[in-house]
Amino acid sequence: MLTKVDLAELAPSVEQFLGQAAYLQLTIFEDLSSILATAPTVEAKEALSRAAAVSLDRYRALSAELAKTGADPAKVMDRYSAGIDFFQRVTQGADWYESLITSHITAGILDDFFARLAVGMPGALAARVGAIYAAASHEQLLAEQIRIGIEANPRVAARLAMWGRRLVGDTILVARSSLAAPVASANDEARIEPVFTELIAAHTRRMDALGLTA
Amino acid sequence: MLTKVDLAELAPSVEQFLGQAAYLQLTIFEDLSSILATAPTVEAKEALSRAAAVSLDRYRALSAELAKTGADPAKVMDRYSAGIDFFQRVTQGADWYESLITSHITAGILDDFFARLAVGMPGALAARVGAIYAAASHEQLLAEQIRIGIEANPRVAARLAMWGRRLVGDTILVARSSLAAPVASANDEARIEPVFTELIAAHTRRMDALGLTA
Repeated sequence: MLTKVDLAELAPSVEQFLGQAAYLQLTIFEDLSSILATAPTVEAKEALSRAAAVSLDRYRALSAELAKTGADPAKVMDRYSAGIDFFQRVTQGADWYESLITSHITAGILDDFFARLAVGMPGALAARVGAIYAAASHEQLLAEQIRIGIEANPRVAARLAMWGRRLVGDTILVARSSLAAPVASANDEARIEPVFTELIAAHTRRMDALGLTA
Repeated sequence: MLTKVDLAELAPSVEQFLGQAAYLQLTIFEDLSSILATAPTVEAKEALSRAAAVSLDRYRALSAELAKTGADPAKVMDRYSAGIDFFQRVTQGADWYESLITSHITAGILDDFFARLAVGMPGALAARVGAIYAAASHEQLLAEQIRIGIEANPRVAARLAMWGRRLVGDTILVARSSLAAPVASANDEARIEPVFTELIAAHTRRMDALGLTA
Protein backbone atom coordinates (compact mmCIF):
# COMPACT_ATOMS: atom_id res chain seq x y z
CA MET A 1 0.00 0.00 0.00
CA LEU A 2 2.80 2.38 0.96
CA THR A 3 4.61 1.81 -2.33
CA LYS A 4 1.39 2.39 -4.29
CA VAL A 5 0.87 5.78 -2.69
CA ASP A 6 4.50 6.69 -3.29
CA LEU A 7 4.35 5.68 -6.93
CA ALA A 8 1.20 7.75 -7.43
CA GLU A 9 3.31 10.88 -6.99
CA LEU A 10 5.37 9.92 -10.01
CA ALA A 11 2.32 9.02 -12.11
CA PRO A 12 2.14 10.55 -15.58
CA SER A 13 -0.78 12.64 -16.86
CA VAL A 14 -4.04 10.86 -17.71
CA GLU A 15 -3.37 11.09 -21.44
CA GLN A 16 0.21 9.90 -21.12
CA PHE A 17 -0.82 7.03 -18.87
CA LEU A 18 -3.73 5.85 -21.03
CA GLY A 19 -1.85 6.34 -24.32
CA GLN A 20 1.06 4.22 -23.17
CA ALA A 21 -1.07 1.65 -21.38
CA ALA A 22 -3.37 1.21 -24.42
CA TYR A 23 -0.53 0.96 -26.92
CA LEU A 24 1.28 -1.57 -24.74
CA GLN A 25 -1.84 -3.75 -24.64
CA LEU A 26 -2.14 -3.47 -28.42
CA THR A 27 1.50 -4.57 -28.70
CA ILE A 28 1.03 -7.51 -26.32
CA PHE A 29 -2.09 -8.43 -28.28
CA GLU A 30 -0.14 -8.34 -31.56
CA ASP A 31 2.56 -10.58 -30.13
CA LEU A 32 0.04 -13.06 -28.76
CA SER A 33 -1.80 -13.13 -32.10
CA SER A 34 1.33 -13.94 -34.02
CA ILE A 35 2.15 -16.69 -31.50
CA LEU A 36 -1.41 -17.98 -31.99
CA ALA A 37 -0.98 -17.97 -35.77
CA THR A 38 2.08 -20.24 -35.54
CA ALA A 39 0.85 -22.45 -32.69
CA PRO A 40 1.72 -26.15 -33.13
CA THR A 41 -1.78 -27.49 -32.31
CA VAL A 42 -5.38 -26.34 -32.53
CA GLU A 43 -5.54 -26.84 -28.76
CA ALA A 44 -2.71 -24.33 -28.27
CA LYS A 45 -4.47 -21.96 -30.68
CA GLU A 46 -7.64 -22.22 -28.66
CA ALA A 47 -5.79 -21.39 -25.42
CA LEU A 48 -3.89 -18.54 -27.06
CA SER A 49 -7.06 -17.07 -28.51
CA ARG A 50 -8.28 -16.67 -24.93
CA ALA A 51 -4.97 -15.07 -23.92
CA ALA A 52 -5.08 -12.68 -26.90
CA ALA A 53 -8.66 -11.78 -26.00
CA VAL A 54 -7.54 -10.63 -22.52
CA SER A 55 -5.11 -8.11 -24.03
CA LEU A 56 -7.51 -7.02 -26.75
CA ASP A 57 -10.26 -6.43 -24.16
CA ARG A 58 -7.85 -4.39 -22.04
CA TYR A 59 -6.76 -2.42 -25.07
CA ARG A 60 -10.36 -1.68 -26.02
CA ALA A 61 -11.24 -0.60 -22.49
CA LEU A 62 -8.16 1.65 -22.14
CA SER A 63 -8.69 3.12 -25.59
CA ALA A 64 -12.33 3.83 -24.69
CA GLU A 65 -11.14 5.67 -21.55
CA LEU A 66 -8.80 7.69 -23.73
CA ALA A 67 -11.66 8.58 -26.11
CA LYS A 68 -13.75 9.67 -23.09
CA THR A 69 -11.17 12.37 -22.29
CA GLY A 70 -11.96 13.89 -25.70
CA ALA A 71 -8.63 12.77 -27.18
CA ASP A 72 -8.16 10.86 -30.43
CA PRO A 73 -6.77 7.51 -29.19
CA ALA A 74 -4.71 6.87 -32.34
CA LYS A 75 -3.05 10.30 -32.13
CA VAL A 76 -2.18 9.96 -28.45
CA MET A 77 -0.87 6.40 -28.85
CA ASP A 78 1.20 7.49 -31.82
CA ARG A 79 3.33 9.67 -29.51
CA TYR A 80 4.47 6.61 -27.58
CA SER A 81 4.56 4.12 -30.45
CA ALA A 82 8.22 4.55 -31.45
CA GLY A 83 9.59 3.58 -28.03
CA ILE A 84 7.17 0.70 -27.57
CA ASP A 85 7.72 -0.58 -31.14
CA PHE A 86 11.44 -0.60 -30.40
CA PHE A 87 10.85 -2.52 -27.16
CA GLN A 88 8.73 -5.02 -29.14
CA ARG A 89 11.54 -5.50 -31.65
CA VAL A 90 14.32 -6.09 -29.14
CA THR A 91 12.24 -8.51 -27.08
CA GLN A 92 11.20 -10.59 -30.08
CA GLY A 93 11.91 -14.28 -29.47
CA ALA A 94 13.95 -16.42 -31.86
CA ASP A 95 11.32 -19.17 -31.92
CA TRP A 96 7.82 -20.01 -30.78
CA TYR A 97 8.69 -20.73 -27.13
CA GLU A 98 10.93 -17.70 -26.73
CA SER A 99 8.08 -15.58 -28.13
CA LEU A 100 5.70 -17.15 -25.65
CA ILE A 101 8.09 -16.40 -22.76
CA THR A 102 8.39 -12.82 -24.03
CA SER A 103 4.64 -12.27 -23.84
CA HIS A 104 4.32 -14.00 -20.50
CA ILE A 105 7.22 -12.17 -18.84
CA THR A 106 6.88 -8.68 -20.32
CA ALA A 107 3.07 -8.57 -19.97
CA GLY A 108 3.39 -9.93 -16.44
CA ILE A 109 5.75 -7.17 -15.33
CA LEU A 110 4.11 -4.33 -17.27
CA ASP A 111 0.54 -5.19 -16.29
CA ASP A 112 1.65 -5.26 -12.65
CA PHE A 113 3.38 -1.93 -13.06
CA PHE A 114 0.54 -0.15 -14.86
CA ALA A 115 -2.01 -1.49 -12.38
CA ARG A 116 0.10 0.19 -9.66
CA LEU A 117 0.47 3.41 -11.63
CA ALA A 118 -3.33 3.48 -12.14
CA VAL A 119 -3.73 4.21 -8.42
CA GLY A 120 -2.33 7.68 -9.16
CA MET A 121 -5.05 8.53 -11.70
CA PRO A 122 -7.52 11.22 -10.60
CA GLY A 123 -10.99 10.53 -9.20
CA ALA A 124 -13.02 7.55 -10.36
CA LEU A 125 -10.61 6.82 -13.22
CA ALA A 126 -8.22 5.09 -10.78
CA ALA A 127 -10.86 2.51 -9.86
CA ARG A 128 -12.06 2.05 -13.46
CA VAL A 129 -8.54 1.45 -14.76
CA GLY A 130 -7.78 -0.77 -11.77
CA ALA A 131 -10.80 -2.87 -12.74
CA ILE A 132 -9.49 -3.19 -16.33
CA TYR A 133 -6.27 -4.77 -15.05
CA ALA A 134 -8.04 -6.88 -12.43
CA ALA A 135 -10.73 -8.20 -14.81
CA ALA A 136 -8.91 -11.18 -16.28
CA SER A 137 -5.39 -12.46 -16.65
CA HIS A 138 -3.65 -14.61 -19.22
CA GLU A 139 -0.90 -15.56 -16.80
CA GLN A 140 -2.14 -19.11 -16.15
CA LEU A 141 -2.97 -19.70 -19.83
CA LEU A 142 0.50 -18.67 -20.99
CA ALA A 143 2.33 -20.46 -18.18
CA GLU A 144 0.45 -23.66 -19.05
CA GLN A 145 1.52 -23.50 -22.72
CA ILE A 146 5.14 -22.88 -21.72
CA ARG A 147 5.08 -25.82 -19.30
CA ILE A 148 3.72 -28.06 -22.07
CA GLY A 149 6.65 -27.03 -24.26
CA ILE A 150 9.26 -27.61 -21.57
CA GLU A 151 7.80 -31.04 -20.72
CA ALA A 152 7.89 -32.05 -24.37
CA ASN A 153 11.47 -30.89 -24.75
CA PRO A 154 13.25 -30.42 -21.39
CA ARG A 155 16.48 -29.34 -23.08
CA VAL A 156 14.98 -25.95 -23.98
CA ALA A 157 14.62 -25.01 -20.28
CA ALA A 158 18.13 -23.54 -19.89
CA ARG A 159 17.78 -21.43 -23.02
CA LEU A 160 14.33 -20.18 -21.97
CA ALA A 161 15.62 -19.31 -18.49
CA MET A 162 18.40 -17.25 -20.07
CA TRP A 163 15.95 -15.53 -22.40
CA GLY A 164 13.65 -14.77 -19.44
CA ARG A 165 16.53 -13.10 -17.58
CA ARG A 166 17.42 -11.01 -20.61
CA LEU A 167 13.87 -9.69 -20.92
CA VAL A 168 13.70 -8.20 -17.43
CA GLY A 169 16.13 -5.35 -18.08
CA ASP A 170 14.34 -4.05 -21.18
CA THR A 171 10.94 -4.42 -19.55
CA ILE A 172 11.96 -2.46 -16.45
CA LEU A 173 13.34 0.26 -18.76
CA VAL A 174 9.97 0.58 -20.52
CA ALA A 175 8.24 0.75 -17.15
CA ARG A 176 10.61 3.51 -15.96
CA SER A 177 10.16 5.49 -19.15
CA SER A 178 6.40 5.55 -18.68
CA LEU A 179 6.64 7.64 -15.52
CA ALA A 180 5.83 11.36 -15.48
CA ALA A 181 9.45 12.44 -15.84
CA PRO A 182 12.86 10.78 -15.81
CA VAL A 183 13.54 9.62 -12.28
CA ALA A 184 16.49 11.85 -11.50
CA SER A 185 16.65 12.68 -7.81
CA ALA A 186 17.87 10.27 -5.18
CA ASN A 187 14.59 10.94 -3.41
CA ASP A 188 12.50 9.73 -6.39
CA GLU A 189 14.85 6.82 -6.86
CA ALA A 190 14.31 5.79 -3.24
CA ARG A 191 10.57 6.07 -3.79
CA ILE A 192 10.52 3.90 -6.88
CA GLU A 193 13.06 1.33 -5.74
CA PRO A 194 10.65 -0.77 -3.62
CA VAL A 195 8.19 -0.94 -6.52
CA PHE A 196 10.77 -2.47 -8.81
CA THR A 197 11.86 -4.82 -6.06
CA GLU A 198 8.26 -6.05 -5.85
CA LEU A 199 7.94 -6.34 -9.64
CA ILE A 200 11.07 -8.46 -9.77
CA ALA A 201 9.88 -10.62 -6.88
CA ALA A 202 6.66 -11.29 -8.84
CA HIS A 203 8.75 -12.05 -11.92
CA THR A 204 10.82 -14.56 -9.93
CA ARG A 205 7.62 -16.28 -8.78
CA ARG A 206 6.44 -16.53 -12.42
CA MET A 207 9.75 -18.08 -13.47
CA ASP A 208 9.67 -20.48 -10.48
CA ALA A 209 6.19 -21.61 -11.53
CA LEU A 210 7.70 -22.61 -14.88
CA GLY A 211 10.54 -24.45 -13.17
CA LEU A 212 12.99 -21.88 -14.55
CA THR A 213 15.66 -20.01 -12.61
CA ALA A 214 15.08 -16.25 -12.66
CA MET B 1 -36.08 -16.30 -47.91
CA LEU B 2 -36.65 -19.16 -50.37
CA THR B 3 -32.93 -19.72 -50.83
CA LYS B 4 -32.38 -19.76 -47.07
CA VAL B 5 -34.96 -22.50 -46.57
CA ASP B 6 -33.52 -24.49 -49.44
CA LEU B 7 -29.99 -24.18 -48.11
CA ALA B 8 -31.13 -25.35 -44.69
CA GLU B 9 -31.73 -28.80 -46.16
CA LEU B 10 -28.05 -29.04 -47.04
CA ALA B 11 -26.92 -27.77 -43.65
CA PRO B 12 -24.26 -29.83 -41.86
CA SER B 13 -24.65 -31.21 -38.33
CA VAL B 14 -24.43 -28.80 -35.40
CA GLU B 15 -20.91 -29.93 -34.51
CA GLN B 16 -19.71 -29.75 -38.10
CA PHE B 17 -21.26 -26.31 -38.58
CA LEU B 18 -19.93 -24.82 -35.34
CA GLY B 19 -16.49 -26.43 -35.68
CA GLN B 20 -15.97 -25.01 -39.16
CA ALA B 21 -17.56 -21.65 -38.40
CA ALA B 22 -15.46 -21.20 -35.25
CA TYR B 23 -12.19 -22.23 -36.88
CA LEU B 24 -12.87 -19.94 -39.84
CA GLN B 25 -13.36 -16.99 -37.47
CA LEU B 26 -10.14 -17.90 -35.69
CA THR B 27 -8.39 -17.92 -39.07
CA ILE B 28 -9.87 -14.58 -40.13
CA PHE B 29 -8.85 -13.22 -36.74
CA GLU B 30 -5.27 -14.49 -37.20
CA ASP B 31 -5.06 -12.84 -40.62
CA LEU B 32 -6.44 -9.54 -39.34
CA SER B 33 -4.01 -9.61 -36.41
CA SER B 34 -1.01 -10.09 -38.64
CA ILE B 35 -2.25 -7.24 -40.87
CA LEU B 36 -2.59 -5.15 -37.72
CA ALA B 37 0.96 -6.00 -36.65
CA THR B 38 2.38 -4.66 -39.94
CA ALA B 39 0.01 -1.69 -40.34
CA PRO B 40 1.73 1.45 -41.66
CA THR B 41 0.25 3.86 -39.08
CA VAL B 42 -1.06 3.73 -35.52
CA GLU B 43 -4.38 4.97 -36.93
CA ALA B 44 -4.60 1.90 -39.19
CA LYS B 45 -3.65 -0.28 -36.23
CA GLU B 46 -6.45 1.23 -34.19
CA ALA B 47 -9.01 0.55 -36.95
CA LEU B 48 -7.69 -2.98 -37.49
CA SER B 49 -7.83 -3.75 -33.79
CA ARG B 50 -11.58 -3.10 -34.01
CA ALA B 51 -11.87 -5.34 -37.08
CA ALA B 52 -9.89 -8.13 -35.38
CA ALA B 53 -12.13 -7.80 -32.33
CA VAL B 54 -15.22 -8.52 -34.46
CA SER B 55 -13.78 -11.87 -35.60
CA LEU B 56 -12.41 -12.72 -32.16
CA ASP B 57 -15.81 -12.03 -30.57
CA ARG B 58 -17.50 -14.22 -33.19
CA TYR B 59 -14.96 -16.95 -32.61
CA ARG B 60 -15.48 -16.81 -28.86
CA ALA B 61 -19.28 -16.93 -29.22
CA LEU B 62 -19.20 -19.85 -31.71
CA SER B 63 -16.68 -21.74 -29.62
CA ALA B 64 -18.87 -21.21 -26.54
CA GLU B 65 -21.84 -22.68 -28.47
CA LEU B 66 -19.67 -25.64 -29.37
CA ALA B 67 -18.71 -26.14 -25.71
CA LYS B 68 -22.42 -26.01 -24.77
CA THR B 69 -23.06 -29.12 -26.90
CA GLY B 70 -20.66 -30.97 -24.59
CA ALA B 71 -17.93 -31.13 -27.23
CA ASP B 72 -14.30 -30.09 -26.77
CA PRO B 73 -14.02 -27.07 -29.14
CA ALA B 74 -10.31 -27.66 -29.91
CA LYS B 75 -10.94 -31.31 -30.83
CA VAL B 76 -13.89 -30.52 -33.11
CA MET B 77 -12.09 -27.63 -34.81
CA ASP B 78 -9.04 -29.80 -35.32
CA ARG B 79 -11.07 -32.00 -37.72
CA TYR B 80 -11.54 -29.07 -40.07
CA SER B 81 -8.24 -27.30 -39.51
CA ALA B 82 -6.27 -28.93 -42.35
CA GLY B 83 -8.62 -27.73 -45.09
CA ILE B 84 -9.02 -24.25 -43.63
CA ASP B 85 -5.26 -23.90 -42.99
CA PHE B 86 -4.70 -24.76 -46.65
CA PHE B 87 -7.29 -22.18 -47.71
CA GLN B 88 -5.49 -19.62 -45.52
CA ARG B 89 -2.17 -20.41 -47.18
CA VAL B 90 -3.37 -20.16 -50.79
CA THR B 91 -5.24 -16.91 -50.14
CA GLN B 92 -2.26 -15.24 -48.43
CA GLY B 93 -1.57 -11.85 -50.02
CA ALA B 94 1.85 -10.86 -51.35
CA ASP B 95 1.82 -7.56 -49.48
CA TRP B 96 -0.12 -5.57 -46.93
CA TYR B 97 -2.92 -4.44 -49.24
CA GLU B 98 -3.40 -7.83 -50.83
CA SER B 99 -3.65 -9.31 -47.33
CA LEU B 100 -6.22 -6.68 -46.43
CA ILE B 101 -8.27 -7.51 -49.57
CA THR B 102 -8.02 -11.20 -48.66
CA SER B 103 -9.56 -10.64 -45.24
CA HIS B 104 -12.21 -8.28 -46.57
CA ILE B 105 -13.28 -10.50 -49.49
CA THR B 106 -13.03 -13.96 -47.95
CA ALA B 107 -14.61 -12.93 -44.63
CA GLY B 108 -17.33 -11.06 -46.54
CA ILE B 109 -18.33 -14.12 -48.56
CA LEU B 110 -17.90 -16.70 -45.79
CA ASP B 111 -19.71 -14.70 -43.11
CA ASP B 112 -22.63 -14.24 -45.55
CA PHE B 113 -22.62 -17.95 -46.30
CA PHE B 114 -22.41 -19.16 -42.71
CA ALA B 115 -25.13 -16.73 -41.63
CA ARG B 116 -27.38 -18.38 -44.24
CA LEU B 117 -26.38 -21.88 -43.19
CA ALA B 118 -27.18 -20.98 -39.58
CA VAL B 119 -30.87 -20.85 -40.51
CA GLY B 120 -30.70 -24.65 -40.85
CA MET B 121 -29.53 -25.18 -37.26
CA PRO B 122 -32.07 -26.81 -34.94
CA GLY B 123 -34.30 -24.92 -32.48
CA ALA B 124 -33.07 -21.78 -30.75
CA LEU B 125 -29.51 -22.31 -31.96
CA ALA B 126 -30.44 -20.88 -35.39
CA ALA B 127 -31.40 -17.55 -33.86
CA ARG B 128 -28.43 -17.46 -31.46
CA VAL B 129 -25.92 -18.12 -34.25
CA GLY B 130 -27.76 -15.68 -36.51
CA ALA B 131 -27.28 -13.04 -33.81
CA ILE B 132 -23.53 -13.79 -33.66
CA TYR B 133 -23.18 -12.96 -37.36
CA ALA B 134 -25.54 -9.97 -37.18
CA ALA B 135 -23.89 -8.44 -34.10
CA ALA B 136 -21.14 -6.41 -35.73
CA SER B 137 -19.30 -6.29 -39.01
CA HIS B 138 -15.80 -5.26 -39.99
CA GLU B 139 -16.83 -4.66 -43.58
CA GLN B 140 -16.81 -0.84 -43.40
CA LEU B 141 -13.61 -0.76 -41.34
CA LEU B 142 -11.69 -2.91 -43.81
CA ALA B 143 -13.14 -1.19 -46.89
CA GLU B 144 -12.07 2.16 -45.46
CA GLN B 145 -8.44 1.02 -44.98
CA ILE B 146 -8.33 -0.39 -48.52
CA ARG B 147 -9.73 2.87 -49.94
CA ILE B 148 -7.03 4.83 -48.07
CA GLY B 149 -4.40 2.61 -49.69
CA ILE B 150 -5.82 2.96 -53.20
CA GLU B 151 -6.10 6.74 -52.85
CA ALA B 152 -2.49 6.97 -51.72
CA ASN B 153 -1.29 4.81 -54.60
CA PRO B 154 -3.89 4.50 -57.40
CA ARG B 155 -1.61 2.27 -59.45
CA VAL B 156 -2.23 -0.67 -57.10
CA ALA B 157 -5.95 -0.77 -58.04
CA ALA B 158 -5.59 -3.05 -61.07
CA ARG B 159 -3.46 -5.55 -59.15
CA LEU B 160 -5.86 -5.54 -56.19
CA ALA B 161 -8.84 -6.06 -58.53
CA MET B 162 -7.11 -9.07 -60.07
CA TRP B 163 -6.28 -10.45 -56.63
CA GLY B 164 -9.90 -9.95 -55.55
CA ARG B 165 -11.13 -11.97 -58.55
CA ARG B 166 -8.68 -14.78 -57.78
CA LEU B 167 -9.93 -15.08 -54.20
CA VAL B 168 -13.55 -15.76 -55.12
CA GLY B 169 -12.97 -19.25 -56.52
CA ASP B 170 -11.10 -20.57 -53.48
CA THR B 171 -13.58 -18.96 -51.11
CA ILE B 172 -16.59 -20.50 -52.85
CA LEU B 173 -14.83 -23.88 -52.68
CA VAL B 174 -14.43 -23.58 -48.91
CA ALA B 175 -18.09 -22.60 -48.62
CA ARG B 176 -19.18 -25.64 -50.68
CA SER B 177 -16.99 -28.00 -48.67
CA SER B 178 -18.65 -26.90 -45.44
CA LEU B 179 -22.03 -28.32 -46.48
CA ALA B 180 -23.37 -31.60 -45.07
CA ALA B 181 -22.16 -33.69 -47.98
CA PRO B 182 -20.60 -33.05 -51.38
CA VAL B 183 -23.25 -31.46 -53.60
CA ALA B 184 -23.60 -34.25 -56.16
CA SER B 185 -27.12 -34.38 -57.55
CA ALA B 186 -28.46 -31.95 -60.13
CA ASN B 187 -31.30 -31.31 -57.72
CA ASP B 188 -28.95 -30.18 -54.91
CA GLU B 189 -26.93 -28.18 -57.40
CA ALA B 190 -30.10 -26.35 -58.50
CA ARG B 191 -30.89 -25.69 -54.86
CA ILE B 192 -27.51 -24.24 -54.03
CA GLU B 193 -26.96 -22.30 -57.24
CA PRO B 194 -29.10 -19.24 -56.29
CA VAL B 195 -27.24 -18.95 -52.99
CA PHE B 196 -23.88 -18.66 -54.70
CA THR B 197 -25.37 -16.22 -57.21
CA GLU B 198 -26.37 -14.03 -54.25
CA LEU B 199 -22.97 -14.40 -52.56
CA ILE B 200 -21.24 -13.31 -55.74
CA ALA B 201 -23.62 -10.38 -56.20
CA ALA B 202 -22.73 -9.24 -52.65
CA HIS B 203 -19.05 -9.70 -53.49
CA THR B 204 -19.46 -7.52 -56.60
CA ARG B 205 -21.05 -4.80 -54.47
CA ARG B 206 -18.10 -4.94 -52.06
CA MET B 207 -15.63 -4.60 -54.94
CA ASP B 208 -17.67 -1.74 -56.46
CA ALA B 209 -17.56 0.09 -53.14
CA LEU B 210 -13.75 -0.02 -53.40
CA GLY B 211 -13.86 1.25 -56.99
CA LEU B 212 -12.53 -2.13 -58.16
CA THR B 213 -13.94 -4.28 -60.98
CA ALA B 214 -15.12 -7.65 -59.73
